[in-house]
Amino acid sequence: MAGVAEGEVIKNNKKVLLKKYVSGFPQESDLEVVTNETILLKVPQGSKAVLVKNLYLSCDPFLRVLMSKFAEAHYIEPFHPGTVIRGFGVSRVLESGHPDFKEGEYVWGITGWEEYSLITDTEKIFKIPFTDVPLSYYTGLLGMTGLTAYIGFNEICSPKEGEYVFISAASGAVGQLVGQLAKLKGCYVVGTAGSDEKVELLKTKFGFDDAFNYKTEKSLRAAVRRCFPKGIDIYFDNVGGALLDAALLNMRDNGRISACGMISQYNLEKLEGVHFLVKVITKKLTMKGFNVADHFNLYPKFLEVIMPHIKNGEITYLEDKVEGIENVPAALIGLFTGKNVGKQFVVLADE
Amino acid sequence: MAGVAEGEVIKNNKKVLLKKYVSGFPQESDLEVVTNETILLKVPQGSKAVLVKNLYLSCDPFLRVLMSKFAEAHYIEPFHPGTVIRGFGVSRVLESGHPDFKEGEYVWGITGWEEYSLITDTEKIFKIPFTDVPLSYYTGLLGMTGLTAYIGFNEICSPKEGEYVFISAASGAVGQLVGQLAKLKGCYVVGTAGSDEKVELLKTKFGFDDAFNYKTEKSLRAAVRRCFPKGIDIYFDNVGGALLDAALLNMRDNGRISACGMISQYNLEKLEGVHFLVKVITKKLTMKGFNVADHFNLYPKFLEVIMPHIKNGEITYLEDKVEGIENVPAALIGLFTGKNVGKQFVVLADE
Repeated sequence: MAGVAEGEVIKNNKKVLLKKYVSGFPQESDLEVVTNETILLKVPQGSKAVLVKNLYLSCDPFLRVLMSKFAEAHYIEPFHPGTVIRGFGVSRVLESGHPDFKEGEYVWGITGWEEYSLITDTEKIFKIPFTDVPLSYYTGLLGMTGLTAYIGFNEICSPKEGEYVFISAASGAVGQLVGQLAKLKGCYVVGTAGSDEKVELLKTKFGFDDAFNYKTEKSLRAAVRRCFPKGIDIYFDNVGGALLDAALLNMRDNGRISACGMISQYNLEKLEGVHFLVKVITKKLTMKGFNVADHFNLYPKFLEVIMPHIKNGEITYLEDKVEGIENVPAALIGLFTGKNVGKQFVVLADE
Repeated sequence: MAGVAEGEVIKNNKKVLLKKYVSGFPQESDLEVVTNETILLKVPQGSKAVLVKNLYLSCDPFLRVLMSKFAEAHYIEPFHPGTVIRGFGVSRVLESGHPDFKEGEYVWGITGWEEYSLITDTEKIFKIPFTDVPLSYYTGLLGMTGLTAYIGFNEICSPKEGEYVFISAASGAVGQLVGQLAKLKGCYVVGTAGSDEKVELLKTKFGFDDAFNYKTEKSLRAAVRRCFPKGIDIYFDNVGGALLDAALLNMRDNGRISACGMISQYNLEKLEGVHFLVKVITKKLTMKGFNVADHFNLYPKFLEVIMPHIKNGEITYLEDKVEGIENVPAALIGLFTGKNVGKQFVVLADE
């Protein structure tokens, strides 16, 4: 083949592309898996790029936001039809032009959703520090998701022993860890999720004090009040919308709301109104949004906090994996119907 | 008269009572001025109460909240039909059973809306420290209102030189001072108000960089964007509702929203929805409510900051006064139609 020197390898490289801009609820058909592309497994001469084999792709709700036509710049640039999806993943370095990364090392961070990627944005990948835990943890518990839980709860909310903590999407990738971090702080923890199976998991597997299925409650406000007769000190919000209103109505004085996500709103053409913000004044609440990307400097501190608990078996982390790049669209879209139980990721290869 | 000893004085004591619980927009007829009550001008033997003559009554929007049937406890207890309205005021001490207050001294703080009050809640009145400024300033600039502006802006928002500051109800008792505090910090300041006359005042009298009349703009979002092509760092929110949405859509990264009041919502049976809270996440905003009553410990610090500016003529404070207790209902209800221009208070007596 022209342009390929002796000893160089060209590989087939399956990819996930955005097929068209998404408006409203995303469909599998908004994505396309292409199987006929190839890649030259070689870092170009003089480049500081890193060539990786992608092992795990992390399915995260924020990716939906980047699929809209007028998406704002985020930690990742918005997607456009025909371009490869980019997101968090775990990868093995095949060749490196960058002094910080070496062949054979494992990294987590932003990669292309394809079998092999030539990563030029090397400030967005991180060397994997511990390999005596499942590597897939770096898509969740020990990756962006875990850091999100830690920053959004421990740093943003300043939790204190005995406080009342409410978590929405509580069995999800972030919520399950927030609940366990809150229990480690000595808080009383209640979560909500969208199925009885998930509610059961919260109570039996993740150690939540209580939990309810928001889909089967007649009144969210009453459900929250039933679980928190004394009110909520900290609401870790992954969903926004009506649950946010129910939480606002039950907050205690000086309560804190960590605005982590609003998955209930991402697929709406017209956003729901939140009606009880007046509680921010009367209850002297603080509501704070954050982007985990601004806090990667705290990743070592997070590891220091979390690793002993993982090694002592005090943290449980539930993953929901599917195999094969052709299953990416279903896995990603399933986040928005609550199909996943725990952290959703896709396995492309084992090593 | 039975029970009155020689030398004791009984005075006629006109009062403002809540006539019935208010729902929706308050009416003058929800209040009642009674003219036939009397008071014995004497602190009961052994009591630590303070007997005062009320000089100025401060008309504040938060009083509306206390007139609803199911109002929550506030710094002041909610009102009930037949009870006297209580609120901030300026008074002269006639007799004191409390060692901290002496006859002839002036105080500001919570008093009854009547000509004379026997104040037992003495931790809610404060000795007036400077009398070389108009005493009425202690209903506004140097009272709860001024402290609210200072706490809500300087303490809650941590303003920095060159930041972009937006203020709603900007010509009101709090807003006009926030704008001037922001200018003193070197910020770019835009206010909104509900009449062209008020907008003119903001630009000419209070030194705002720009201002607009929210009642005559076709699109609030577009008006805010026109005034802040680079976005808003700090939104000092006195109104909530649609203007809050317009501000949210124009906030910059790491912006701060001081949730001081939501006067647009106080009279609604069904609260308006706020639709763009997702900006709290994407722009990493902090929205913080506060109650000035929690911050009275900072009153001396506030005076240290503000007094030199007042004495140097760097602070302008516009008051809107009416005379006579019979005008209290109209003055108070006028706050909600925007009738007042500047701090509204009622003069009961000059000394």
